[in-house]
Amino acid sequence: MSEENFQGYKKEALETLKKYNAHVWDNAEIDTTRGHFSGKILPRAENTDSKHIVVKVVTGYNIGIDVDTITDIKSHAVPQPKFQIPEKEFPYTKGFPHVKLLGTGGTIASRLDYRTGAVIPAFSPGELYGAVPELADICNLDTEKIFAVFSENMSPKEYIALANKIGEEAKNGIDGIVIGHGTDTLAHTATALTYMCQNLPMPVILVGSQRSSDRPSSDAALNLMHAMTAAGHGDIAEVLVCMFGPTSDEYGFLHRGTRVRKMHSSYRSTFRTIGDTPVATVNRKDGVCPIKEEYNHRRKHGERKVELITNLEDYKASIARNDHNTMRLVPTFDDRVAILYYYPGMKPDVVESLIERGYKGIVWNGTGLGHVNKGMFDVIQKATEAGIHQYMSVQTIWGYTHMFVYDTGRDLMARGIIPASNMLAESAYIKLGWALGLTHDREEVKKLMLTPINSEITPREPYNGYLVYQGGTPEVEEFIKKVHK
Amino acid sequence: MSEENFQGYKKEALETLKKYNAHVWDNAEIDTTRGHFSGKILPRAENTDSKHIVVKVVTGYNIGIDVDTITDIKSHAVPQPKFQIPEKEFPYTKGFPHVKLLGTGGTIASRLDYRTGAVIPAFSPGELYGAVPELADICNLDTEKIFAVFSENMSPKEYIALANKIGEEAKNGIDGIVIGHGTDTLAHTATALTYMCQNLPMPVILVGSQRSSDRPSSDAALNLMHAMTAAGHGDIAEVLVCMFGPTSDEYGFLHRGTRVRKMHSSYRSTFRTIGDTPVATVNRKDGVCPIKEEYNHRRKHGERKVELITNLEDYKASIARNDHNTMRLVPTFDDRVAILYYYPGMKPDVVESLIERGYKGIVWNGTGLGHVNKGMFDVIQKATEAGIHQYMSVQTIWGYTHMFVYDTGRDLMARGIIPASNMLAESAYIKLGWALGLTHDREEVKKLMLTPINSEITPREPYNGYLVYQGGTPEVEEFIKKVHK
Repeated sequence: MSEENFQGYKKEALETLKKYNAHVWDNAEIDTTRGHFSGKILPRAENTDSKHIVVKVVTGYNIGIDVDTITDIKSHAVPQPKFQIPEKEFPYTKGFPHVKLLGTGGTIASRLDYRTGAVIPAFSPGELYGAVPELADICNLDTEKIFAVFSENMSPKEYIALANKIGEEAKNGIDGIVIGHGTDTLAHTATALTYMCQNLPMPVILVGSQRSSDRPSSDAALNLMHAMTAAGHGDIAEVLVCMFGPTSDEYGFLHRGTRVRKMHSSYRSTFRTIGDTPVATVNRKDGVCPIKEEYNHRRKHGERKVELITNLEDYKASIARNDHNTMRLVPTFDDRVAILYYYPGMKPDVVESLIERGYKGIVWNGTGLGHVNKGMFDVIQKATEAGIHQYMSVQTIWGYTHMFVYDTGRDLMARGIIPASNMLAESAYIKLGWALGLTHDREEVKKLMLTPINSEITPREPYNGYLVYQGGTPEVEEFIKKVHK
Repeated sequence: MSEENFQGYKKEALETLKKYNAHVWDNAEIDTTRGHFSGKILPRAENTDSKHIVVKVVTGYNIGIDVDTITDIKSHAVPQPKFQIPEKEFPYTKGFPHVKLLGTGGTIASRLDYRTGAVIPAFSPGELYGAVPELADICNLDTEKIFAVFSENMSPKEYIALANKIGEEAKNGIDGIVIGHGTDTLAHTATALTYMCQNLPMPVILVGSQRSSDRPSSDAALNLMHAMTAAGHGDIAEVLVCMFGPTSDEYGFLHRGTRVRKMHSSYRSTFRTIGDTPVATVNRKDGVCPIKEEYNHRRKHGERKVELITNLEDYKASIARNDHNTMRLVPTFDDRVAILYYYPGMKPDVVESLIERGYKGIVWNGTGLGHVNKGMFDVIQKATEAGIHQYMSVQTIWGYTHMFVYDTGRDLMARGIIPASNMLAESAYIKLGWALGLTHDREEVKKLMLTPINSEITPREPYNGYLVYQGGTPEVEEFIKKVHK
């Protein structure tokens, strides 16, 4: 019995497999205190715990079974499949753009063995070529693992590391960057990188997948091909999210990092640009197709100057120079910032706590046009006096704050809350942390917050932003039909 | 100069008007430190502050001007319009249903004087008849002001008072109830009343308006007519929200109280049923048209027994009796409950604070399938040990928690977080407060939370719940066309 038979299992899970003489790739009948499971024992991937045995059940889903609940395993050995990622060298094609894929954790792509249902993660250029050979028709590829964390564990520390890495790659002249990222907080990272990496000379495309590569409906390979196409051949030098289009497998959308939000917990077409259209569609045949020709995109260019900025004075000087061809790398963050999501009956003690614990910024997510109850007025005043910067976003998600309309809005502003227009709560939260990394001066922070860097505040409803939720206004649908017919 | 000329103004605002010899209905040129405003000085409504003078500017908007910013008013008296609400008696029509309108604050309807732009609030049956004479063709009407609070100031105390009032009206045999409510927290009140008023014998319809009655695009009168129609003639004995339909002035939607959410800060068609279709459309010609015939609606009936329940034992006994014709009035709430909206970089101290301050329930609003970062694991465990009941909802708004899929979900459940399926964060928050009003027993609370009272948890995507956001799947659109052609 080779060690291979327990691939990836450790501690309790390993003990349990050994106890019942069960191995990876066995067909198993598992009795638990929660019921009976029948399926194939799969190897475990990186970053996983030691408490679960993962089984592919007949529906095709992988289920993690808590070893503490297991009362019996009847294991039927089957011939162990012999395969490995067909790791060939990723072909170099002269004239193709050079793309760098940065990994943050999880599986970017993988190869499925249909006989066993097993998934072999692929990350190195050679592995990716084995898993998604079409990539070699798109670009030359280099890859680098930056972290190995679940998306929900990404934090300002990782945003800063990614920003610095992007600066380095920009200097080195890369044609485009793709960042593989879990979907939970992919939008947060995209908005952070928009603030930290300004005046980009090349596309930075974040990509993920909603369905893992071992499922027939996986969007992983398609999203990756679209992201590589946008990074290598696209002309839009911005931080963009490339994810599944809303109505078919035929194209992906490119969303601006500051305006994109995950809007369904499990659907593939979950990423939506809120309050605007997506920036472009992307497909392999036509490449990147901007949705509105007049969109004010940053264009890719060859100048590779990068200016590192970590204080307000340098930032203001850089803005004053107005040199669009020098990348502004601003990897700052003050993490004493919180989002407060309003609910009726909210009590002042939640704000008291933030004051006591030394928080410096609060992004409110209020009802309607930007309201909270009057029981909060005094503590909001107190927070302002304690030097906390407070901004208001709307929990309706769509629409703008309008705090001049009702007395409540005016009362809140009088106590120091500044309306954040139609910034998404997440974009406002990350921008406030970023701005407080540069300065704590109230007026300067306000100037930073209310000056859009890339569409985090948009003109009022340019194309009926509410309706683009479904993927398009009539114009957008028309455009998509035209391009993708 | 009569007192009438300062109608509604008090303290500083009154002083300012007097200082510049300006009056209500005057055409005024007002200089302020924020710029110049030109328009007609309007009377002020109830519940307003003493710091602002309200002016109808040429665009038709009413603007509140902070008196502290005013540097000059040049006031041009114009003949004061002579009008009043044409208060005639609301006609009694034999055979028409009896509807009770409960006011919670703000303006339900109003009459606009087009010459002056002034708004005369209407609330008594006679005033409403003057403002919206069509109401007399729908029902017999009685009205009662319960509170006078802004929607954002509604709280569990008001939910309980409303629930008790509904119980009283049910006993008295009313045919239907309409509750006028500000839109900010209308959905919260609707979900609270769903839990507190079970087995209703008659419709309870919450209604509001997104545009005030003094604007040509106001939805106030139409929403009110639709609500009265649903309350008086509808057969659905549930707590429903009646608001503007998404595509035209032709019909309103009836949304279940537990599944409705305000999704745009200013649009009229802002209320959306999430993860299901609305229950019905309503228009004056066809009345209430259920969208799916097989919808399991409660039907209106004549039995008017009401059982007051304030503890778990009585609640369980009532459930066991399974008597659908006795209204269950359960006006309980433990307000030591909070929503925590997750953001990357969230720190344990926000939970520490809730533990220290004696909170008993937390509804998490996590990323993806129901996740928060691993830095929170210990404090979540600690909160559970401190007796805090913790439930997980998804901040994607659409979709379900699936906490068995990833290690993070399993780790969170192991520490006491219970997945709340597809309950909206708001519905889960209010239900948790309500359930904790009945019991603090962990298993009993869980049973209450996860047993739907009226669709707060729905079967997985019955009609592709994601897409109904736009007002309809193809079936719904087809239905609407058929009914409203």
